[in-house]
Amino acid sequence: MIVGVLGPAGSYSDKAAKGWIEKQGISDSSSLLYYDDISDTFSAVIEGKTEIGIVPIENSIEGSVGITLDLLLDSDVTIIGEVVVPIEHCLLSRGKMDDIRVILSHPQALAQCRQFIRTHFRNVEIRTTGSTSHAAKLANEFEEMAAIASKESAKAYGLNILMPNIQDRKQNHTRFIAIRKTDNETGETNTEDACTHKTSVIAYIGNDKAGSLYELLGEFAKRGINLTRIESRPSKRSLGDYLFYIDLEGSTSDAIIKDALYHIESRVSMLKVLGSYNGYQLDS
Amino acid sequence: MIVGVLGPAGSYSDKAAKGWIEKQGISDSSSLLYYDDISDTFSAVIEGKTEIGIVPIENSIEGSVGITLDLLLDSDVTIIGEVVVPIEHCLLSRGKMDDIRVILSHPQALAQCRQFIRTHFRNVEIRTTGSTSHAAKLANEFEEMAAIASKESAKAYGLNILMPNIQDRKQNHTRFIAIRKTDNETGETNTEDACTHKTSVIAYIGNDKAGSLYELLGEFAKRGINLTRIESRPSKRSLGDYLFYIDLEGSTSDAIIKDALYHIESRVSMLKVLGSYNGYQLDS
Repeated sequence: MIVGVLGPAGSYSDKAAKGWIEKQGISDSSSLLYYDDISDTFSAVIEGKTEIGIVPIENSIEGSVGITLDLLLDSDVTIIGEVVVPIEHCLLSRGKMDDIRVILSHPQALAQCRQFIRTHFRNVEIRTTGSTSHAAKLANEFEEMAAIASKESAKAYGLNILMPNIQDRKQNHTRFIAIRKTDNETGETNTEDACTHKTSVIAYIGNDKAGSLYELLGEFAKRGINLTRIESRPSKRSLGDYLFYIDLEGSTSDAIIKDALYHIESRVSMLKVLGSYNGYQLDS
Repeated sequence: MIVGVLGPAGSYSDKAAKGWIEKQGISDSSSLLYYDDISDTFSAVIEGKTEIGIVPIENSIEGSVGITLDLLLDSDVTIIGEVVVPIEHCLLSRGKMDDIRVILSHPQALAQCRQFIRTHFRNVEIRTTGSTSHAAKLANEFEEMAAIASKESAKAYGLNILMPNIQDRKQNHTRFIAIRKTDNETGETNTEDACTHKTSVIAYIGNDKAGSLYELLGEFAKRGINLTRIESRPSKRSLGDYLFYIDLEGSTSDAIIKDALYHIESRVSMLKVLGSYNGYQLDS
């Protein structure tokens, strides 16, 4: 099985993918392909270059990864699993603290270390990269450059850890999802049906937002279905027009979930079921 | 009156602030102070260096401005107005299209032009700046640099507009808010009480999210109070733990809004009323 992830090696996505593969018990038969960004990882799945893609969807400090939410809406993919990875950002460089003139990292990592950067580096230049490990790879070129990335990246690209655990909150986790191309013939959204514990959907309510979100949530509430996440995202049609990304406990193979989604479908302009799946939590 | 905004001159914040000041009819007695980032603009208000701060809170393509939401939670400020500005990003440079090796802009503007950059510039370096106008200022230094910024910035920093209107959706608006330091003696959250049309609050429900968000929305729904926005944001305590930012129609001086907020307060772990205020929409 070929799994596509945001690379190069040493990224948190790499760690998530390796963890997911190990938990699935398919280490012997799997190989990883590294991509430059999240869009390319989605494209590889859709074009059949990889069977699975592993992409970040949410961080406990900085929130949703916008591009992943947008691509889940627009792409023909199904979520088949999730893996939660503890994130410990380090400041990595070949040089010393005083040498640093440029800090490189992925925008999410920069946002997670906003206060740290503000406190220690008021006048450095900030450059964004497609991944934290790519930042580490680039920081190897000049002593005046530092990357914000994992300790695994320090090892992979020959950098020193100038400061460990620099994110603004010590508790920092990122949730990754495993996606595969949707099987449109079966319309199947489950891997193991009755054994899956979580279902993700996107609902577009349309104009009458206030009452309708309340009514939509009511369909879950009156059936005792527990929601683990509700996230709004601009529909991009106009300001104040949103999509709602909802995670709920249970599988689309459960009668009660099926019933709730059936009733919701008639209330909203659009309902997309992203999949039912199980999750893992990795150790740091 | 001194108004603080994200600078330098030519930023969309600058446009928002000038628009807001004009609509307030206080052009003659107002002056602008420019700050390097959103945090500094908040700090200036809290420390009394400026009476008002104008900061972006939400964009119709890329969604909420995370740092503004976080600072609204943590700072002793009140929202006293809003202004919606049409956003037309341009690609600005002293050089030609083929010269460009580096693109500079604010992370939100880069995200709003993600597809444009992907289509035209697969191998350029992306650097982030504190504002779009700062990007334009820097792009003046080298022909190989381009900034994504407003047409006003092109004029201000002597750059050519290589391509106009480059954001991924032609309809693109950003909502800015006017903040001032909260008057803790009166606890007052209104400027003109009964004349204000919109109220913003932050609610932290705590652990039992599913049922409780439903019940919270019910307090508005059963009183016929229209919600214009619901946005979740990580509480930063743990993955899956959220704050909800809610905008509603009406003023905290309305009895029905007061009653709804009173009942919500007893249901949630934390309720912060950010203010009741009016809004303006600027022309392009």
